Amino acid sequence: MSKLINPTDLNFLLYQVFQADQLNQLEAFKEHDRSTYDAVLRTAEHIAEAYFLPHNAKADAQEPHFDGQRVTTVDEVKVAWQHFADAGLINARHAYDDGGMQLPALIHSACNAFFMSANPSTAGYPFLTSAAANVIHAFGTEEQKHTYLPAMFSGQFAGTMALTEPDVGSSLGDLTTKAIPQDDGSYRIKGQKMYISGGDQDITDNIVHLVLARIEGAPAGVKGISLFIVPKIRVNADGQLGDHNDVQLAGLLHKMGYRGTTSTVLNFGEQDDCHGWLIGEANQGLSYMFKMMNEARIGVGLGAAMIGYRGYLESLDYARQRPQGRAVGERDPLSKPLNIIEHADVKRMLLAQKSYVEGSLALCLFAARLVDESEQGQQQDSAILLDLLTPVVKSFPSFYGPKANDLAIQVLGGSGYTREYPVEQCYRDNRLNPIHEGTHGIQSLDLLGRKLWQHNGKGQQLLLARIQQTLTRAQQHDALQPLCQSYQQHLNTLVKTTMTLGQTLQQGNAELGLANSALYLDMMGRCVIGWLWLEMAEKALSSELADEFIHGKLQTARYFIRWELPEIEHQAQLLCGLDTTCMDMQNHWF
Amino acid sequence: MSKLINPTDLNFLLYQVFQADQLNQLEAFKEHDRSTYDAVLRTAEHIAEAYFLPHNAKADAQEPHFDGQRVTTVDEVKVAWQHFADAGLINARHAYDDGGMQLPALIHSACNAFFMSANPSTAGYPFLTSAAANVIHAFGTEEQKHTYLPAMFSGQFAGTMALTEPDVGSSLGDLTTKAIPQDDGSYRIKGQKMYISGGDQDITDNIVHLVLARIEGAPAGVKGISLFIVPKIRVNADGQLGDHNDVQLAGLLHKMGYRGTTSTVLNFGEQDDCHGWLIGEANQGLSYMFKMMNEARIGVGLGAAMIGYRGYLESLDYARQRPQGRAVGERDPLSKPLNIIEHADVKRMLLAQKSYVEGSLALCLFAARLVDESEQGQQQDSAILLDLLTPVVKSFPSFYGPKANDLAIQVLGGSGYTREYPVEQCYRDNRLNPIHEGTHGIQSLDLLGRKLWQHNGKGQQLLLARIQQTLTRAQQHDALQPLCQSYQQHLNTLVKTTMTLGQTLQQGNAELGLANSALYLDMMGRCVIGWLWLEMAEKALSSELADEFIHGKLQTARYFIRWELPEIEHQAQLLCGLDTTCMDMQNHWF
Repeated sequence: MSKLINPTDLNFLLYQVFQADQLNQLEAFKEHDRSTYDAVLRTAEHIAEAYFLPHNAKADAQEPHFDGQRVTTVDEVKVAWQHFADAGLINARHAYDDGGMQLPALIHSACNAFFMSANPSTAGYPFLTSAAANVIHAFGTEEQKHTYLPAMFSGQFAGTMALTEPDVGSSLGDLTTKAIPQDDGSYRIKGQKMYISGGDQDITDNIVHLVLARIEGAPAGVKGISLFIVPKIRVNADGQLGDHNDVQLAGLLHKMGYRGTTSTVLNFGEQDDCHGWLIGEANQGLSYMFKMMNEARIGVGLGAAMIGYRGYLESLDYARQRPQGRAVGERDPLSKPLNIIEHADVKRMLLAQKSYVEGSLALCLFAARLVDESEQGQQQDSAILLDLLTPVVKSFPSFYGPKANDLAIQVLGGSGYTREYPVEQCYRDNRLNPIHEGTHGIQSLDLLGRKLWQHNGKGQQLLLARIQQTLTRAQQHDALQPLCQSYQQHLNTLVKTTMTLGQTLQQGNAELGLANSALYLDMMGRCVIGWLWLEMAEKALSSELADEFIHGKLQTARYFIRWELPEIEHQAQLLCGLDTTCMDMQNHWF
Repeated sequence: MSKLINPTDLNFLLYQVFQADQLNQLEAFKEHDRSTYDAVLRTAEHIAEAYFLPHNAKADAQEPHFDGQRVTTVDEVKVAWQHFADAGLINARHAYDDGGMQLPALIHSACNAFFMSANPSTAGYPFLTSAAANVIHAFGTEEQKHTYLPAMFSGQFAGTMALTEPDVGSSLGDLTTKAIPQDDGSYRIKGQKMYISGGDQDITDNIVHLVLARIEGAPAGVKGISLFIVPKIRVNADGQLGDHNDVQLAGLLHKMGYRGTTSTVLNFGEQDDCHGWLIGEANQGLSYMFKMMNEARIGVGLGAAMIGYRGYLESLDYARQRPQGRAVGERDPLSKPLNIIEHADVKRMLLAQKSYVEGSLALCLFAARLVDESEQGQQQDSAILLDLLTPVVKSFPSFYGPKANDLAIQVLGGSGYTREYPVEQCYRDNRLNPIHEGTHGIQSLDLLGRKLWQHNGKGQQLLLARIQQTLTRAQQHDALQPLCQSYQQHLNTLVKTTMTLGQTLQQGNAELGLANSALYLDMMGRCVIGWLWLEMAEKALSSELADEFIHGKLQTARYFIRWELPEIEHQAQLLCGLDTTCMDMQNHWF
């Protein structure tokens, strides 16, 4: 079996659950069919296995180094990067006319999944570049597109998003980087940015930073933020590289994991000579950046799912091969030890992992399907549902992916705790995901404070309708009836909780209504994943796949709905009771 | 405030909750009083802060190195080790006649807590040495004691426990290391051991390995295991060091954390010249080792609690100083940001940590109090209760300590994920604790398969009686009445679940009864910690301590009993229903 993704599972998700073969009903994808999809998926898998996987541990052990002058990364990163770019994967989703493959987001996400499983750190460079290019493509001038996009697509330039500052993490409204207008229409940028992933490296000739800054005299807060293109090296009119643009690497941050991707502190305009070019309109920067961030949030979810998935496959492999202990009740010390996969508690740890990571991957692919529907089919409903679910797509995998990696280590025991086995790195790498692109706390406020109520709660209705469709189909299968019944009961709890919190917020009691938002985010995540497990079980039972695969999906659906979902009942009690235990705690009582 | 332990909390636990000042009613401690306890605690804290804390991060970054000839550790480890030994802390609990301080386990554990918080890796060396010395002291001959103990107490020799082998992790009955009897009464040892902590180092002149091996012709399984003293360098009759003893370091293992403590693969008798000396009787090795292991399990619990505690204090400190974001509903972008401790979700993360780590420390100190009562007072009841609780003392802190460290990182956000802040290392260090000295799975089988039913369930009765005493006192406080009521309800659930599982096991259905043992272990842990929170809240309310401290204990008791304890209800449903979801899963369905 592939070390990166179970191929049966991926095909099942793409073609049975999310009906990728029907995407060609959308205009943009009409020239595609399963054969073109499979070809690009095989290419992605090959490049991931041949050029990304082999140096995953090495790039961790020999993390990027800054000698005060330049950054050094292991050589394999550049080779991997170039293979990725040469295969057309940086601009795979762009139009044929722009040199792209017009690939659906669903298939593109599946391609990305291989890289995230193989080597999330090295994958970070092309993924960030894609995201930055997409912003320029969507909001830049023709000249800006012409100057930067071909070089970003070919792998000559990389891209970053430069939001965070040393004193400004989650509250972007407080950022202080300045942009001073110049007579030629450009700006001089001045300020410091921190935690900029890929902010410097020795892989590409140039780096295109997308920088959030405040134009002199702009309003305070989020309403005065603009977005700028700030290349590391200026690009002349003829496309040749010009002068250095006064973007200085102040230092690298040393992370627990994800070490292969540089995390940087950058000084812009220390010599007052950092040129920036405004993207779109002044003071609209945050809305442009949010396009990129929403994509990035789905990408973080997918990354978290896949690091979890990799750990699951590794621990499954180990459990199948490692003899240790005997069946309960076996008293003969000379009897042959069992492989540990036969122990109930090891099965529990594998089942939990399977439920988290296959559920998370399904969720991320569902989000990608919604991207396709909303972008290409102009379906407003899909856009609304995607908007509602984005905090869940970012957060559920980011919370349960690391939990899966924790269990993978536990399955391996002492071996799992050493760097001699890959699950150790998975655990460290994945710990980043609940933090970047908006922490859990931020996502939960976004969900409960905003997303649920947009368009008069239309997103909720759309989600419930989708769930109802699944339940109707699932109830046709005897094996699923008891699960449907339990699920319906817990779904009612979610609906009731949402109403109670909605009323509280409507009455103006925002502090009280939002106090336990993190709990609500988890509850919503469990309900969404529980639904996707029912959906997978139903599609599996309706398929002609191998019995063992179908049993696996069915038993994991049982696990998730019996073991994981019911915990929302206690969460609902706290939420519906508007529990104030945390809110009431005082600084000096700690 | 101290970076290692909140001093008010420690004094409260020692003197108010566990009444250390009444320990002098036990014969061995009659010459002690609070002033002698406080003196040794101050010494421990000073040595921990001055000699252990400063190199905690350095010993992690520059982990021990093996060049094929010898191991190198950072110099500070040896200095710290010698300060520890010189202060008499290795043999602090031994009798005055043996050069010890006759210190109660309760006070000794509190001393150890400082070192575990400051630098668990360096603390590993003296703690293992103490444990090995205790076994020799308890079961060795006078000659063995005379040969090894003075040098171990003075810090000249270190000690290890060498159980695990490459193919034998948790099932010791399968170990294959051989012991071949010699005419002079000694044995030749031959075999390989793995994951031996402190198995080699450059800190001490000699290392005394306690090795489990099988004497030629011994019965198979656990009944044929004997325990041997196997020094790295032989000790002549005059106490001088003699020849090397054919114990070879095959290599170091590279751990995720706890890097400062070497983890080794050792070859015994590659040249057929490894001499070992039997401890006690042949084939009784496992019972001797279990004395050491029970101590070690309580030590692991304490270590996990303290690494969690350290992370909690660091994140609390950060949250109090880091401005970010504004109150819900504050719309003025020019208003001053709040320190993040004012956000409800940050309070949640700090409260959860406080509930886990202060609860875990209380549990470990309670276990130490039981050690004192059972060893010194010869109280059979305390020994039985300690025996029942040992799996919980090992496991609850090992599971919830890392969870606390995870939350500490989340409080710090991006900073928490970098090695520039100490919470990152805490997270890696603590991940070892659910694995070594018996994994969660092993502990849960020990609890549910054995400990609960020993002495006709006397341990359960003793625990329930202690809980009832707390409830009776707590109900006198108005503030605690609703908590007592909830607690009683959940306790009933535990009792009912225990009965159901007991009946299943009694009917010979061991596989079914034990299938979900890990769930039961967590359930028991939550009930025990919930009880200790009621106990702490009651003692705090009855004290004359500062209002803020009392409020803190009360609110954390509320948090634990409202937020964490009720999750046992769903666990009970699965357990009482003898759920077979995990057991039924099949290898090839994954």
